[in-house]
Amino acid sequence: MSHTQMLYVCMNVAIIAPNVPALYEAHFGIPMSGAVLNTVNIRLNASTIAFLLGHSKSAVVFVDQEFFTLAEDALKIMKEKSQGNFKHPLLIVIADESCDPKALRYALGKGAIEYEKFLESGDPEFAWKPPQDEWQSIALGYTSGTTASPKGVVLHHRGAYLMSLSNPLIWGMTEGAVYLWTLPMFHCNGWCFTWSLAALCGTNICLRQVTAKGVYSAIAKYGVTHFCGAPVVLNTIVNAPPEDTILPLPHVVRVMTAGAAPPPAVLSAMSQKGFRVTHTYGLSETYGPSTVCAWKPEWDSLPPETQARLNSRQGVRYIGLEGLDVISTKTGQPVPADGKTIGEIVMRGNVVMKGYLKNPKVNEETFANGWFHSGDLGVKHSDGYIEIKDRSKDIIISGGENISSVEVENSMYLHAAILEASVVARADERWGESPCAFVTLKPGVDKSDEQRLAEDIMKFCRSKMPAYWVPKSVVFGPLPKTATGKIQKHVLRAKAKELGPVKLSKL
Amino acid sequence: MSHTQMLYVCMNVAIIAPNVPALYEAHFGIPMSGAVLNTVNIRLNASTIAFLLGHSKSAVVFVDQEFFTLAEDALKIMKEKSQGNFKHPLLIVIADESCDPKALRYALGKGAIEYEKFLESGDPEFAWKPPQDEWQSIALGYTSGTTASPKGVVLHHRGAYLMSLSNPLIWGMTEGAVYLWTLPMFHCNGWCFTWSLAALCGTNICLRQVTAKGVYSAIAKYGVTHFCGAPVVLNTIVNAPPEDTILPLPHVVRVMTAGAAPPPAVLSAMSQKGFRVTHTYGLSETYGPSTVCAWKPEWDSLPPETQARLNSRQGVRYIGLEGLDVISTKTGQPVPADGKTIGEIVMRGNVVMKGYLKNPKVNEETFANGWFHSGDLGVKHSDGYIEIKDRSKDIIISGGENISSVEVENSMYLHAAILEASVVARADERWGESPCAFVTLKPGVDKSDEQRLAEDIMKFCRSKMPAYWVPKSVVFGPLPKTATGKIQKHVLRAKAKELGPVKLSKL
Repeated sequence: MSHTQMLYVCMNVAIIAPNVPALYEAHFGIPMSGAVLNTVNIRLNASTIAFLLGHSKSAVVFVDQEFFTLAEDALKIMKEKSQGNFKHPLLIVIADESCDPKALRYALGKGAIEYEKFLESGDPEFAWKPPQDEWQSIALGYTSGTTASPKGVVLHHRGAYLMSLSNPLIWGMTEGAVYLWTLPMFHCNGWCFTWSLAALCGTNICLRQVTAKGVYSAIAKYGVTHFCGAPVVLNTIVNAPPEDTILPLPHVVRVMTAGAAPPPAVLSAMSQKGFRVTHTYGLSETYGPSTVCAWKPEWDSLPPETQARLNSRQGVRYIGLEGLDVISTKTGQPVPADGKTIGEIVMRGNVVMKGYLKNPKVNEETFANGWFHSGDLGVKHSDGYIEIKDRSKDIIISGGENISSVEVENSMYLHAAILEASVVARADERWGESPCAFVTLKPGVDKSDEQRLAEDIMKFCRSKMPAYWVPKSVVFGPLPKTATGKIQKHVLRAKAKELGPVKLSKL
Repeated sequence: MSHTQMLYVCMNVAIIAPNVPALYEAHFGIPMSGAVLNTVNIRLNASTIAFLLGHSKSAVVFVDQEFFTLAEDALKIMKEKSQGNFKHPLLIVIADESCDPKALRYALGKGAIEYEKFLESGDPEFAWKPPQDEWQSIALGYTSGTTASPKGVVLHHRGAYLMSLSNPLIWGMTEGAVYLWTLPMFHCNGWCFTWSLAALCGTNICLRQVTAKGVYSAIAKYGVTHFCGAPVVLNTIVNAPPEDTILPLPHVVRVMTAGAAPPPAVLSAMSQKGFRVTHTYGLSETYGPSTVCAWKPEWDSLPPETQARLNSRQGVRYIGLEGLDVISTKTGQPVPADGKTIGEIVMRGNVVMKGYLKNPKVNEETFANGWFHSGDLGVKHSDGYIEIKDRSKDIIISGGENISSVEVENSMYLHAAILEASVVARADERWGESPCAFVTLKPGVDKSDEQRLAEDIMKFCRSKMPAYWVPKSVVFGPLPKTATGKIQKHVLRAKAKELGPVKLSKL
């Protein structure tokens, strides 16, 4: 199979829904009908949804009742832009008793078919269609707006199958696991856990909305054994008010986290509460996490801070991933395993996407020299574990030296008043760029004197890191996030740009 | 891939060894060198080994020092039969400190190369060879003499990979499992657990010889979490004298058993001692077990005897097996799922062998209509679980009615004096065939009056089964077994033949 071919999919079915049972069912029913499943991020706006429904040519759209008007708006935009060529997709609305019944009535009034009625109209004798070729597409998911134009990641049956089997193997999941859906299923098919749970005869607990209270009560009520979440989800759990928690936990709960490296302070706090955190890393293009920071027995006896530091590494490849390396962006050769030399993280093998839909040029760049180029920068340690230092575009270059925004953030999370921190490059008259920190404070922190707080934070940073790493600017306020809880650094970079360059006088 | 093509393998390396580390290493080193691994059953005689070394054209032979003269004898036979064409393979002897040093000196004196020296002569920079095609052969194993001429089962990388991942998933094995090698690695590559353990970063505990004492002390000493064994191994453990056991077990130990359906009495006794028995079923042709009697939560509250009866079913397919069915031997159509209609168990998919080596005619029969024909007869229950009733050739046809020898045996195992029982057809002047039971008694049973014992057993059987199932003959003595502990019914059938037909007068 060549990754650089022009990719099309034959028949696309889109679904716009939070973590409800119908979305889980769609992961089976749609591929079994021979179509490709296109899960849509519910937090996108109507015009972006219009773009991707058009780009994927989705012939059928399933939509949760709460998001019906969003879908309606998207279809309106498509129609307006179509110049008379618009073909209205089959529209199916998913009812949910926990939602406002008016929304359902509205949808039905607009001619949408109710989901259960739609299922009843099916042929119970329908012979499901196994893929004719295991490289056939199973799912399509659009990357969520950290770049200007969403790209359609096309996944194949072979990769989805192997990732589904790899997930439980690297995470101690056994038959009958009880999995809580905190991770959106629309995000890279819930990292393929949708299919893993079926392979394990496990139980799926669906959550429409993720709150600390919802997570703790599901653990107590349903015996949840496993859930996944971006570091910000962990943050929510760690900083939940006591009345929302149920502690001590009735049993060990395993949590998988991915995305950015979770700050050691958060990892440590989770561990103290009895959550066993497994840190993984991957991308939508690799079916979700495809590397894991495999815990070594000899780490058991280390101090908690050292444990957290080691556990924030991105680790080693999943069993289903054939190749993983860190290569020099200049020479294309593997970097030495010295824990210092930064290169780009690259992957290859079964759990790497087919390519981006209808995007041969980007595919060619992305798969240059037979590797999938992640765009993440990292190092290789002597034990073979990789560790992300930054996204290519997140690295801060100050006076010609690289500053890892992730490392600055990790140190900042140790500050008692900081709930969340994100560091980006800000133009700097003297150094070219310097770190600019955006910070959310913990509830209860006195926010009256921001100047004093900022100085205190900078002082704290000076005690933890080289002087040139210390943020020259600290900005307070809520952080912009994607639907999956990733902090949108491109928004912060835009804000940093608005601030203008750090003046020479500031030194 | 067609299963019926003429199968050859390019380069074969044979190894004749009990469960020692070198045999485990061979499962990696030999395929990584690009060769095919041929594991040889150590309990075969020299002429059979001569046949299969010749048939497989093994260019290199590794042999454990204890079995050196066996290999030597086999090579002598090959030379004698070769009419001058014999090419002596490279002979490498594996030393073991626990064995008689004379045997090693003898082997070295005969020019064999010592294993560790051989490894030292290798190139540490050698780039291992991944398979160019995943259907490439990885291993060859000969079926162990239940038929006249051994057939060479050729396994491919794809199947071995998927079986290695399926094993832990159906058996609750997680990272760091401690696996005890009671099952011979030479038997179907230890059901692929050789590779599973590597995938799990597990620990392998090797046992040269399986004794109850050895098993119990390994559990206590090394924290064994899992081991496999034919039902006769379970029998040994259950009937071990108290001084050989360490009970209660220090932790739950999971035991996988396969081969013939384990008698419910044995399953029940294992469970009472704290072993958690998983019952699986498969053949060398399906990479070892490929179906599992998946335990249902609702079985937890059933009486132990009902649990054991349900757990003696062969179950449902492994995740890696694509197709499993029971089909009518007359029509080729699936039998109804009524728990009664007997048909042949058939499989297809990734974990089915490539075919038998150099045996296109048998391959054609074995893979007729796209299914692998197991030769085992069974039924399908309404919940989809299959249950073996007998091997095709083991079924007893009495007065035109089928008698499942397995079911007769299962009932006999409930008798307090019976250690092992095996039932075969004996010619019968009135009924054509009738059941003939071969029985081994438990230690301590008074064996002085065999006639009375036989009558007591028959009386016991009459209380448990239809009259025509009751063995008309009961013969006492040790049972002949294959290297893997399977009772050799063909030997018993020959003995039954020697007894002559059951006379009409006996009624």
